[in-house]
Amino acid sequence: MQKYFITKEEMKNKCITSSDCNHIKNVMRFTKGDLVIVSDGETEFEAKLLEVLKNSVSFTLVKEIKNNNELPYFVDIYQGYPKGDKMSDIAKHSTELGISSLYGVLTKRSVVKLETDKAQNKTERFNKIMKEASEQSNRKVLAKFGGIYKLKDIDFSKYDYKILCFEESAKEGELKNFKTIISSIKNGERLAIFIGPEGGIDLDEVSYLKDLGFIEAALGPRILRTETASLYCLSSISYESELKK
Amino acid sequence: MQKYFITKEEMKNKCITSSDCNHIKNVMRFTKGDLVIVSDGETEFEAKLLEVLKNSVSFTLVKEIKNNNELPYFVDIYQGYPKGDKMSDIAKHSTELGISSLYGVLTKRSVVKLETDKAQNKTERFNKIMKEASEQSNRKVLAKFGGIYKLKDIDFSKYDYKILCFEESAKEGELKNFKTIISSIKNGERLAIFIGPEGGIDLDEVSYLKDLGFIEAALGPRILRTETASLYCLSSISYESELKK
Repeated sequence: MQKYFITKEEMKNKCITSSDCNHIKNVMRFTKGDLVIVSDGETEFEAKLLEVLKNSVSFTLVKEIKNNNELPYFVDIYQGYPKGDKMSDIAKHSTELGISSLYGVLTKRSVVKLETDKAQNKTERFNKIMKEASEQSNRKVLAKFGGIYKLKDIDFSKYDYKILCFEESAKEGELKNFKTIISSIKNGERLAIFIGPEGGIDLDEVSYLKDLGFIEAALGPRILRTETASLYCLSSISYESELKK
Repeated sequence: MQKYFITKEEMKNKCITSSDCNHIKNVMRFTKGDLVIVSDGETEFEAKLLEVLKNSVSFTLVKEIKNNNELPYFVDIYQGYPKGDKMSDIAKHSTELGISSLYGVLTKRSVVKLETDKAQNKTERFNKIMKEASEQSNRKVLAKFGGIYKLKDIDFSKYDYKILCFEESAKEGELKNFKTIISSIKNGERLAIFIGPEGGIDLDEVSYLKDLGFIEAALGPRILRTETASLYCLSSISYESELKK
């Protein structure tokens, strides 16, 4: 069943007024009586459509859905801003895999230099991608793109664990840190993962992050592309914390 | 250091005669005296270039490199042929993550219908992508694209374990099978993973695969896109078998 993340206001009024109306009316071609899922990120319902108009879609709640599809703890990824359109793919796939928030980070070796208004447009676009991916992958909570920042402007103090994915660690045969941390995080805690851009992270930045409490960790013995690293982390976290044997 | 997978013949003659000559001379602009890594998939050496010509590059061996970057067992993925150019991304990223061989499978719900000559061209293209990704990710063994086949034409008898990634299992809350299998495979054994195309797998095909010994398994509680499933599997396999705590 098609899912829509709506605001708490829309849930209270039982009426959608966002651009989802266009999706409901013109893309899915839903009409009166059709069933969808609506979620405000906290509660989720099967809903029957009452009136489908261009700018408003009213509905009535049929039954609450108990959905517990979220990772047991919060995983935020700080991605060194990559070239081309790779950030779109990272936004899409990391949402399917359970990320809480994704951030773009401008580091010394980032090729991309973003002006403020362009960064704002990108943030909106990545949030749109993550909303659609949250709906498609049946997330309970809407994954967010938190914005694009310079490394030194980010406050990492809210995190319980901080991992720095570092390919030099892989070359030195370090294969313990990632699994040791991932297997000790408790439900509800907060993990930050930092991934460098294509050119890797400058050694000054490595020192800066280590001073902030980041632990260097290798993601296996092979060298991963920057856009693969986030998917490795989130897949492993799901495997460790959500699958049983 | 840039790595090149070469044939056993080229290794014996200490001379590269493939299209890698163009890469060495014109892309990397290497000249006499530069160091590269050459591997025939079994042994791997640091090599010094002697003469760099358009169609031949001769070298001398400097020292053997002991590289053990392969997953401890063989993982072949049978991917329901996806739309657009998704197979290229799957080929690239699954190579970084340690796949042995990737196959394209034409199922009932595959949108793509490939004629024989087109399938041959695609196979060559995906092998080129996987060779470059094997070099870039520092694989010891060259990952291969095994070809595109109809489901009923594939012989799965050589595998010790067979997993069918099935999203209906996720909906039913099945979360044990994948981890139970992955954590019991022994070094050197062979695992086949079957992943459906965008539209999922037809129930007749599910029965057919189960009769061949495939076990249905969910990859966590969320719904993954077809191009994300292979990366989830390989990342989890690396996490389980290569990382320590």
